[in-house]
Amino acid sequence: GGRFLASEHQHARYNPLRDDWVLVSAHRVKRPWQGQVEKPPPEEVPRWDPNNPLCPGATRANGEVNPQYEGTFIFPNDFPALQPDAPEPDDSDHPLFRAAPARGVCKVMCFHPWSDLTLPLMSLAEIRAVIDAWAELATNLGASYPWVQIFENKGAMMGCSNPHPHCQVWASSFLPNEARLEDRTQREHLSQRGVPMLLEYAEQEARRKERLVVENVDWLVVVPYWATWPYQTLLLPRRHVCRLQDLSEGERDSLASIMKRLLIKYDNLFEVSFPYSMGWHGAPTGPHLEEDCRHWQLHAHYYPPLLRSATVRKFMVGYEMLAQAQRDLTPEQLMAARPLAHGYVLGLGDR
Amino acid sequence: GGRFLASEHQHARYNPLRDDWVLVSAHRVKRPWQGQVEKPPPEEVPRWDPNNPLCPGATRANGEVNPQYEGTFIFPNDFPALQPDAPEPDDSDHPLFRAAPARGVCKVMCFHPWSDLTLPLMSLAEIRAVIDAWAELATNLGASYPWVQIFENKGAMMGCSNPHPHCQVWASSFLPNEARLEDRTQREHLSQRGVPMLLEYAEQEARRKERLVVENVDWLVVVPYWATWPYQTLLLPRRHVCRLQDLSEGERDSLASIMKRLLIKYDNLFEVSFPYSMGWHGAPTGPHLEEDCRHWQLHAHYYPPLLRSATVRKFMVGYEMLAQAQRDLTPEQLMAARPLAHGYVLGLGDR
Ligand SMILES: O=P(O)(O)O[C@H]1O[C@H](CO)[C@@H](O)[C@H](O)[C@H]1O
Ligand SMILES: O=P(O)(O)O[C@H]1O[C@H](CO)[C@@H](O)[C@H](O)[C@H]1O
Repeated sequence: GGRFLASEHQHARYNPLRDDWVLVSAHRVKRPWQGQVEKPPPEEVPRWDPNNPLCPGATRANGEVNPQYEGTFIFPNDFPALQPDAPEPDDSDHPLFRAAPARGVCKVMCFHPWSDLTLPLMSLAEIRAVIDAWAELATNLGASYPWVQIFENKGAMMGCSNPHPHCQVWASSFLPNEARLEDRTQREHLSQRGVPMLLEYAEQEARRKERLVVENVDWLVVVPYWATWPYQTLLLPRRHVCRLQDLSEGERDSLASIMKRLLIKYDNLFEVSFPYSMGWHGAPTGPHLEEDCRHWQLHAHYYPPLLRSATVRKFMVGYEMLAQAQRDLTPEQLMAARPLAHGYVLGLGDR
Repeated sequence: GGRFLASEHQHARYNPLRDDWVLVSAHRVKRPWQGQVEKPPPEEVPRWDPNNPLCPGATRANGEVNPQYEGTFIFPNDFPALQPDAPEPDDSDHPLFRAAPARGVCKVMCFHPWSDLTLPLMSLAEIRAVIDAWAELATNLGASYPWVQIFENKGAMMGCSNPHPHCQVWASSFLPNEARLEDRTQREHLSQRGVPMLLEYAEQEARRKERLVVENVDWLVVVPYWATWPYQTLLLPRRHVCRLQDLSEGERDSLASIMKRLLIKYDNLFEVSFPYSMGWHGAPTGPHLEEDCRHWQLHAHYYPPLLRSATVRKFMVGYEMLAQAQRDLTPEQLMAARPLAHGYVLGLGDR
């Protein structure tokens, strides 16, 4: 009974981008944790390791030797999930057994020649070079492929098997599930409200200031109202921008700056190189370049696994896999510094 | 080029229950793995530990003392994500900031008084008692709640913090995302094809025999054609059954038997107590008991995280979170014993 308090009372929140719901049970963060603890990331990573296939001068799985690269370095993934020339599956003989062609390319992009760096430790000029390389890949692969997924898995907890700072780019002949979903929801929003969903959302969040992590003249980062992962964030331009390649010079510089600020906050939170998977979503490309994509707004999702400390993660398991995502504290609670006694060292709000 | 071979050539497969796709890149299983390895489960779990809150006679977080139970034992979760009496969230002031009420109850159910057992190590009569307790909970909580989610998180890798054999039951005042999704897809299938989707699917799989893991007179278990997790399975009745509580005496006995056979296969696969999250989906309850639910077919999903061995899991991370689930070998490949050299000890097919 009594008055509703989001920080005390369970409720569901609607995710308009995915057209689904998250169960928010703030009081649950009080429970003790005796389950699995994760290994913290290695303290000492050698700057250069001739046996690390991502290093300059090292030999890769296919026998090729990397150049002595000095900035970013892009090469084909040696174990690609997508290849340009797979034959078409046979026609399905039954509607419950449907296969479809899937073609594409998978690339790896090193951010920097040194293995002991991460994005927040790089200079603004170096981060800017990464952004330019992303935009170039998005343009080149997007000339023919409908979807170019740029993503970074950071940390062993996120399945990343190499500490060298890098991301991946998988371009595909099809729109993946998440792309189709966001295409539909953004299209419906524009047609119903006359303004792109994430442009309206950024304006609202800039005004409300409750979930704002960092902002500058061109960008803002929020813990979205509907975040499922505890420290999930959404990076949004203030201007209507469809694709990475549409960013102006100034917007690329300010993007480097806001990314660095966000990632430093993340690292400071639990005083650990913060694991996450992140990636860019923008308007589809290839044949869609000819279509009206005004419902799309460029954005990046950051999905970090940690919940309580550098070694205790949120498990999205039974209930989450079978029923609905569930979170143990509200996005707003994360904003206050030292919000809770049990291991929440810092908030995302300030420091 | 050349002729299409599912075991060689990447393709996408359609999941009719979730109306989405999985990218199948069978050739990728050949890549080496130098990433995170998981801790195997503890070898020695004491049969009785007075400090384990799930044991008979132990004291729980709320100060209550467990009875000396001898079969299953059900008690309220001491840190529930859902409570029966949370106040309603205020009306939303904006369509992008929508909250909804979420009420319910969370229960824990111990399968057995001994901590050193798991379901496959229990007798058929003991497993049958678990099934009866599930059906009773589904009936009682389903009298008022629209959705009763029964699920088991098994193993530390699946966020389970207690080795004592147990599952959870979360009943909610709302249909969770997955329930709404499966309700829609099954409804559409019945109206288009005149037969419940999973009844038609079971008949097809029983005939095709390509992905059949175990079967008996009432049940079958398949690695679904559209499986996303490497060793994911789907447990299906052969008869049209809407809910757990509709199972006959005979079907409950044969369910105990097929569960035991499936779980022994899982444990044998990598010679480890196999981690997974599993759970039951059936027709909604509460107010939906009055509705036509013939499109529903009762089923259980098993989602195991392992990929290559007892210590190497599949990471559903960057591409999977941002674009689309991806798997590294086909469901059909799993059926052959010793299908691949790198750590695939056994197939699910036989032994
Ligand atoms: O309820 P438990 O076992 O403490 O917790 C586990 O299962 C829950 C339901 O899937 C998850 O929300 C938790 O993240 C997980 O650690
Ligand atoms: O490509 P990597 O880094 O070898 O692999 C990692 O990222 C991929 C894309 O998200 C996932 O499919 C793999 O499970 C994960 O281990």
